[in-house]
Amino acid sequence: MASTRIPFDEAYTVVRSATERLGITGDRGDLCARLFVEATRDGVYSHGMERFPTFARAVADGLVDVTARPRRVSGGGAIERWDGCRGPGNLNAWSAMDRAMALAREHGVGAVSLGNTNHWMRGGSYGWQAADAGLLALCWSNTLPNTSAAGEPPAVGNNPLVVALPRSAGPLVLDMALSQFSVGVMTGYAQRGERLPVPGGFTAAGELTDVAADVVGGGHGAAIGRWKGFALAVVLDAWAAMLSGGRATHELGQDPARESGQTQFFLAVDPDAVGAPGEREQMVDGIVAALKQAPGADGSELRYPGEGTFRTRAENLAHGLPVRRATWEALTSAGAPPAQGTEDGGAQGQ
Amino acid sequence: MASTRIPFDEAYTVVRSATERLGITGDRGDLCARLFVEATRDGVYSHGMERFPTFARAVADGLVDVTARPRRVSGGGAIERWDGCRGPGNLNAWSAMDRAMALAREHGVGAVSLGNTNHWMRGGSYGWQAADAGLLALCWSNTLPNTSAAGEPPAVGNNPLVVALPRSAGPLVLDMALSQFSVGVMTGYAQRGERLPVPGGFTAAGELTDVAADVVGGGHGAAIGRWKGFALAVVLDAWAAMLSGGRATHELGQDPARESGQTQFFLAVDPDAVGAPGEREQMVDGIVAALKQAPGADGSELRYPGEGTFRTRAENLAHGLPVRRATWEALTSAGAPPAQGTEDGGAQGQ
Repeated sequence: MASTRIPFDEAYTVVRSATERLGITGDRGDLCARLFVEATRDGVYSHGMERFPTFARAVADGLVDVTARPRRVSGGGAIERWDGCRGPGNLNAWSAMDRAMALAREHGVGAVSLGNTNHWMRGGSYGWQAADAGLLALCWSNTLPNTSAAGEPPAVGNNPLVVALPRSAGPLVLDMALSQFSVGVMTGYAQRGERLPVPGGFTAAGELTDVAADVVGGGHGAAIGRWKGFALAVVLDAWAAMLSGGRATHELGQDPARESGQTQFFLAVDPDAVGAPGEREQMVDGIVAALKQAPGADGSELRYPGEGTFRTRAENLAHGLPVRRATWEALTSAGAPPAQGTEDGGAQGQ
Repeated sequence: MASTRIPFDEAYTVVRSATERLGITGDRGDLCARLFVEATRDGVYSHGMERFPTFARAVADGLVDVTARPRRVSGGGAIERWDGCRGPGNLNAWSAMDRAMALAREHGVGAVSLGNTNHWMRGGSYGWQAADAGLLALCWSNTLPNTSAAGEPPAVGNNPLVVALPRSAGPLVLDMALSQFSVGVMTGYAQRGERLPVPGGFTAAGELTDVAADVVGGGHGAAIGRWKGFALAVVLDAWAAMLSGGRATHELGQDPARESGQTQFFLAVDPDAVGAPGEREQMVDGIVAALKQAPGADGSELRYPGEGTFRTRAENLAHGLPVRRATWEALTSAGAPPAQGTEDGGAQGQ
């Protein structure tokens, strides 16, 4: 799997041209390209530039309407319901978090439910969006049914969950699927012929396994904590669907080859609404310091969510963004939607 | 472990007398007793009447101030920060959710951060509180450090997380610790000399195990999804501490024998703020129906969070609430705080 490193600005220029070719223009094209390239910059390769060809195919297949803009359906006070109108998922999600943040600045807390959208790509983007602006954020998306508790046919999604807290020395940003490994990570292990570090999925026969190839090849992921992650997936799906009128996981599963129409929920909190900024900063710094002083297993270091991002970002900005050669060629070739065969299959979601 | 069954009304009367003896009187005594007895009624035995003796000891030890009432510290709009003043944890949590619900009715969404409180006992109580009133709820508490990702000394709590959705045919209520098993459940397996159904904790030497006795006897619980549950525990702790000014898990861990001063966060959403009540009901019913139609592993049935509660409740109301004889004797004996030796040690939290 040959890869190359591309300077950030060059990568952005190329992806920006690619969004333009898809018909995502102006400010929307800028933001869409930036979200893809920043995901790669921050080390979330499966949902960065490597994912763009899948996104382009979804546009070509009519699953993503590049001209659609999200539309406010109802709401009042500090919560609103929006219709994503099947527009680009990352633009819709950014817009929804932006609106939740505006509501939070007005009311202290703000919420947006979003139905009828598309895959939001890197969920952490919307956590960083809020944390970089000094707000806390909690958001999640549903997915196709791709996860089980005990090897049964998947009935729940691995609904990625994002929790973000602002902090001067670097925010805390959790961005995790509710399966033990995301589909992108398992695909990587499978391609390298490696075993997963812990059993993290089920074979087609429903047996728990650490053989990544058996999970991505006909099997499916295991929910974190088995029945617990399963249960969490159920209530997050129901919460987002109930408040948005969007499609639930079982409805998304009716046509698993055409993943579209996801449902999401965005919450933002303005910590200034409860005062004591200095104390707040000290509080989170204290939590981080305690973790960094605590011993990890086998001499390792305990890390807080988001800790590695700055390091990866600095490295990728210094040395260029790693991109598979095939992906880079697809991105740089004008015209038709890029070819098949990206790292992340896309059809199974997260 | 001899146990007996006590009719609900008799159990309530006895626990109500016990709260009175502790100095929790009037409406507060009624609510405090009701929360303990209803936890047992609904099958959450470890945090119901079995837990009362531990609660009484915490009062006797001065960890819980029975006269303290929660106090609003700051806030505005749809979010407020409250100080629990080290009052009874279940009364404080009920009051915080009640306030979040009032804010949600006014603003669509409402949030309360609560510091300086005490163990909230059955977290699900506050989910049912909101769901029974037609609101959605999301809340969590931090705990002492009692959980690890990989066998290292515990640096995070198993911070119980509650998510509740209203539904005419019975709400969806998730009430789960972020460890694979709660301390109460593991203690039960250890006392029965049984192995856990899946490896769910670490021995004192940090080895993953399914031997419950080794986990509760010097070991500790494993986070759901290993590093994922660990990371979720970090951000939930930081979120609640940041917004409440309350103590974080590492601070609670400074005196693990005296668990007091927990920090919590409560969010409520009024679904009427986004309209379409009929559609909402249909949406959640559809999710439940899809789960009930899906095949479980090995011929089992998939269950939604909270599904078993009504059945357990009906059974316990019909046949009496199961209580260990020693606990019942402690509850019925007036005077000094009841004896040691309840099912749930209490010192390790959840």
